[in-house]
Amino acid sequence: MEMSKDFELRCVLCNRRFSEGEVEYTCPHCGLNGTLDVIYDYGQARKELNKEAPGSLEDWKSGMWRYWPILPVHRREHIPPLAVGGTPLYENKVVASKYGVKRFLVKDDGRNPTGSLKDRASAVAVARALDLGREHISCSSTGNAASSLSGFAAVTSRGATIFVPESAPVAKITQLLVYGARVVLVKGDYKDAFELSVKAIDHFGWYNRNCAVNPYLVEGKKTCGLEIAEELGWQVPDYLFVSVGDGCIISSMYKAFYDLVNLGMVDCYPKIIGVQAEGCSPVYHAVKNNLSKVAPAQKSDTLADSISVRAPRNWAKALRAVKETGGSMVAVKDEEILDAMKELAVNTGVFAEPAGAAAYAGFCKMAAEEELDSSATAVVVTTGNGLKDISGARKAVGPPLVTRADLGEFIEVIKESSVVGKNFCRSLEARN
Amino acid sequence: MEMSKDFELRCVLCNRRFSEGEVEYTCPHCGLNGTLDVIYDYGQARKELNKEAPGSLEDWKSGMWRYWPILPVHRREHIPPLAVGGTPLYENKVVASKYGVKRFLVKDDGRNPTGSLKDRASAVAVARALDLGREHISCSSTGNAASSLSGFAAVTSRGATIFVPESAPVAKITQLLVYGARVVLVKGDYKDAFELSVKAIDHFGWYNRNCAVNPYLVEGKKTCGLEIAEELGWQVPDYLFVSVGDGCIISSMYKAFYDLVNLGMVDCYPKIIGVQAEGCSPVYHAVKNNLSKVAPAQKSDTLADSISVRAPRNWAKALRAVKETGGSMVAVKDEEILDAMKELAVNTGVFAEPAGAAAYAGFCKMAAEEELDSSATAVVVTTGNGLKDISGARKAVGPPLVTRADLGEFIEVIKESSVVGKNFCRSLEARN
Repeated sequence: MEMSKDFELRCVLCNRRFSEGEVEYTCPHCGLNGTLDVIYDYGQARKELNKEAPGSLEDWKSGMWRYWPILPVHRREHIPPLAVGGTPLYENKVVASKYGVKRFLVKDDGRNPTGSLKDRASAVAVARALDLGREHISCSSTGNAASSLSGFAAVTSRGATIFVPESAPVAKITQLLVYGARVVLVKGDYKDAFELSVKAIDHFGWYNRNCAVNPYLVEGKKTCGLEIAEELGWQVPDYLFVSVGDGCIISSMYKAFYDLVNLGMVDCYPKIIGVQAEGCSPVYHAVKNNLSKVAPAQKSDTLADSISVRAPRNWAKALRAVKETGGSMVAVKDEEILDAMKELAVNTGVFAEPAGAAAYAGFCKMAAEEELDSSATAVVVTTGNGLKDISGARKAVGPPLVTRADLGEFIEVIKESSVVGKNFCRSLEARN
Repeated sequence: MEMSKDFELRCVLCNRRFSEGEVEYTCPHCGLNGTLDVIYDYGQARKELNKEAPGSLEDWKSGMWRYWPILPVHRREHIPPLAVGGTPLYENKVVASKYGVKRFLVKDDGRNPTGSLKDRASAVAVARALDLGREHISCSSTGNAASSLSGFAAVTSRGATIFVPESAPVAKITQLLVYGARVVLVKGDYKDAFELSVKAIDHFGWYNRNCAVNPYLVEGKKTCGLEIAEELGWQVPDYLFVSVGDGCIISSMYKAFYDLVNLGMVDCYPKIIGVQAEGCSPVYHAVKNNLSKVAPAQKSDTLADSISVRAPRNWAKALRAVKETGGSMVAVKDEEILDAMKELAVNTGVFAEPAGAAAYAGFCKMAAEEELDSSATAVVVTTGNGLKDISGARKAVGPPLVTRADLGEFIEVIKESSVVGKNFCRSLEARN
């Protein structure tokens, strides 16, 4: 049997420390807002994790689990049998040149098993549930965490009950029904789904996979940041762009570099830039107004469903990620997200869902406003696969051409289409 | 500059051999039916490709390109910048036990960049286009090859014109529009789209990515089979299940093992089992009736759009793959495909599109009819991601539960749902 790892939990608000068994989810003193950080014995972890290791083919094949010494799972046999992590990081010179930075890279986390970065968190969630002998797992989600948990619960034979707001895209709902989860559409938005899930989880005693409550899920997500650093040869990028909904992913990027600094593998943080949709941007407003708390947004009006979160649960860690790295927040319009989606696909081959493309839209916007250094390396993380929200993507593109199977007609159609194309471009310009 | 590779082209019907520059697509003597095999200098290739190599981390990171000595591309700088191949092969003991085989494995090729095995072919297509200095690429497709070519043309700055039948799923059409391709919906079915593409390609002088015409695309697809053999430690599985539309993928599985036999890396072939939908199964009928040719199906009536091909273009290679490996063909009902989709997802975490799930449905059917040896290793290849065809998947699942954000109402809803669930199951049983 493997030796247990030692780690503590530390409240992001009051800094109180707890042992692993002492508290399960959030700080008992600060309540739901007191999300916890997992703090490892870095001196111990350093023996197994350093600039030389991971470095073997076996490490690589294990995907996100190659960072085992700083993952909050005790038994390797509880690693779920789905290949997570090791997603591609593509460098693109066309984009770098267009936007005036030295290097531009995009991390395509839509290549994970169920198509989103959330798989990194779900993998840890089910491994923890197995560590703890828990049979039933539950979460609320705008969609990706739901389909992700659904897939991971299936392969580990755990039951899953998943609460989604009624606006979640059909693709995401279908995906989690296919995996056999119990799916509950909650009338209202993500906040309503979250609140019902908290009550139901408490009532039934299920294991809680809500990312802003369960401190271990950010630990899974951080492996995306660890991979970025590793793929850059343990060099820290200047800017790291990521979209922000509940605030967990941006928190995980901070945590990745926190761990690496404490392991002595890097000596600084990237400037972490959070991107929200203008139609729902509570974290953006808190940062711009230099507030110490995030107030819920009055409304949520954006096509980027994955980041359509009026009351971010992980706000404290999200604010820290921005403030302690010298980063900032950007808000982008839905039209900018759609343009970014298409531009990203055409230039890099990465087809991202709206929330994923939002991170790229934020990069474009900051670059256009000349807020990025020309010697900088910028990394954009796309957090979900474009196939997850086709109705969103359809808004980004024009219609296909239509023809009978006749060469003459086809030639006429493409002649006309170049005219239509020009008109279409003009109408796009008029719109902006 | 790298040295050119030597290979010849050999007609599958008349066995005539041609040098690389001598003929571009199909055999000039046998016409469109005379598809060509790419035959390498295996003595030369063996020096770089053997049971020990590929084996390094660098090899692994290069994905499908680790089989470089037997890929028909001359210059490494023409490898497109998208990470293809290296998809997971999952072993599953629950499925093996249920269906009475020794080992069951599923290869999830929906994890490729645009979500299907076709990416392996498109990667070679654009690399060849770059080798040859061609600017514009075209194909007809039931959907996956289209979105795949679209993505790869985008990242290599090639123009792309793509012909799809009007029945192609919206997700696939949207995906290729996002990548910026010129998309042409052809009134009619795949046969009509194919025939128009042939005329248009000839008229405009575009590079032809039609897989059953361009001999190099099967070479890309075969890397899926090579990976299966490599991951099994160069052991040959007893059965290899793959769905069949145009006949190219099944041909590529044969070619993978043909190459490995000629390299001396394996000493036999797996029994290759092709799976078609009952609603469109011309290859199945040819094999069952022991015909030497495949006659077009009268109709095409299946939800598995990717294999809805009335007149398979690569029929000669497909028949060879079955006959020369001691394999067979299976035809499955749409309901069997839908059941297989859900069962595969629940057991293995692999969410496959209908055509991908069809291969698993074929495995289930053969196993249920006790046609598989209990000591056998069976591998199922899922060729496309389930997110590509959500409308298909929706037919496989029931509706989600709906509730207000109220614990009392939720508890009532799940009580009722277990009753509804039972009725739903009964209605499913009645249907079968």
